[in-house]
Amino acid sequence: MGKVYLVGAGPGAPDLLTLRAARLLESADIVLHDALVHPDTLALAKRARFIDVGKRCGKVSTDQRFINRALIEAARTHEVVVRLKGGDPMLFGRAHEELEALREAGIECEVVPGVTAALAAAATLQASLTRRGVARSVAFLTPRVGKGEGTSEWLPAALGADSIVLYMAGGAAQSTAKSLIGAGKPSQTPVALVTSASLPEEVRVVTTLAALAAQPLPQSTGPVVMAVGEVFRQRSALQEIEYAPQVASAR
Amino acid sequence: MGKVYLVGAGPGAPDLLTLRAARLLESADIVLHDALVHPDTLALAKRARFIDVGKRCGKVSTDQRFINRALIEAARTHEVVVRLKGGDPMLFGRAHEELEALREAGIECEVVPGVTAALAAAATLQASLTRRGVARSVAFLTPRVGKGEGTSEWLPAALGADSIVLYMAGGAAQSTAKSLIGAGKPSQTPVALVTSASLPEEVRVVTTLAALAAQPLPQSTGPVVMAVGEVFRQRSALQEIEYAPQVASAR
Repeated sequence: MGKVYLVGAGPGAPDLLTLRAARLLESADIVLHDALVHPDTLALAKRARFIDVGKRCGKVSTDQRFINRALIEAARTHEVVVRLKGGDPMLFGRAHEELEALREAGIECEVVPGVTAALAAAATLQASLTRRGVARSVAFLTPRVGKGEGTSEWLPAALGADSIVLYMAGGAAQSTAKSLIGAGKPSQTPVALVTSASLPEEVRVVTTLAALAAQPLPQSTGPVVMAVGEVFRQRSALQEIEYAPQVASAR
Repeated sequence: MGKVYLVGAGPGAPDLLTLRAARLLESADIVLHDALVHPDTLALAKRARFIDVGKRCGKVSTDQRFINRALIEAARTHEVVVRLKGGDPMLFGRAHEELEALREAGIECEVVPGVTAALAAAATLQASLTRRGVARSVAFLTPRVGKGEGTSEWLPAALGADSIVLYMAGGAAQSTAKSLIGAGKPSQTPVALVTSASLPEEVRVVTTLAALAAQPLPQSTGPVVMAVGEVFRQRSALQEIEYAPQVASAR
């Protein structure tokens, strides 16, 4: 019986992997990975078999059952099993379902944390998510609706926190901005949208809730993190980011 | 004029550093570091001078001004300046003040994200901070009060989110539990306290708000992360953690 490591691959850039994750990949016999893991990260696993279990844009739950079964099967036939997940495994990663399935099958697990997308976005924006006197709390949430979930259950968390970071926000950015304004968030609250945080193709947009509510974002191919709050107000040092009443985009 | 890198050192274990941070330390000419950075992490900076700018338990703000001045001075006299911060630089790290001082002095900065303590705690607890149908949001906040800040400004963020992770919660764990119950959080809500997450001396305690409110935590020397929410309810696979009406501690 092998051991399964749920490993965070970080936000995108291969050198934002942890040393522990890199060593585990080097010793992995089999790697089950998400769609968004960088090829250079996978290349660290020199002697491993690979199974791409990537899901994009929420398919039906049979997919997750397939992943759970594949993990159990992998642990029965390989010693070091790495389940490589984008970002950190314990945030928006359905790790609970995988851990539960593995526990029920009596398979030993270990979780290796990673750098989550919100922190990569904050780094590139050079905006601290918390700031003395301005933001004492930050909420991470997703407006993405799963089967049987309501559409606005995330609002209390968003309204209660000083800073908000929304994951998987690409398709829902405009409706999210409308919901926040509708719920009383000031329409001039700054919003930063970071697509493909930490990768060469990263795109940052800094705008306001009002501007975003009025005009949809251009379609993007990479994952989008949407950050809302006073801490994201434009500072002069980041001149390549335009802060304007209309949505402006910049590299 | 040198460049300053604000680098996350991760939650404690030296192998939870990112590859990028490790490479930057190897090329650093000077390292200004927090008190809690692991000696093995510092040892990566083979050719650097070190300045310990660690603060413990919130001293007065002159300390921060000293750090800002030391960073500017370091950038004027060294090429690669690493400001090494525990966890991630953009969470509860006063990065804003350092970035602002450096920008005003015309010094180039870059932020390298790291693994934050909440994610190391979630990993060791094997509890996903979000979970379909149970927790769609997580708030990171601190009950620690800075100069001129109110004591309960964090409550709306804590009550709005499905999962809560409180940083620097050691001294305030009991009063935080009381505040949450007083504000209407169910008293049987599970609480996990992780001291020195990811280090060999790590201690995990799983209890309830009611039990924690009734009995203070034993004094601890390491940093404490306090996680509150249904996702932290005890699962059978972590048998070394006691889930009991009284506070129980285990390695």
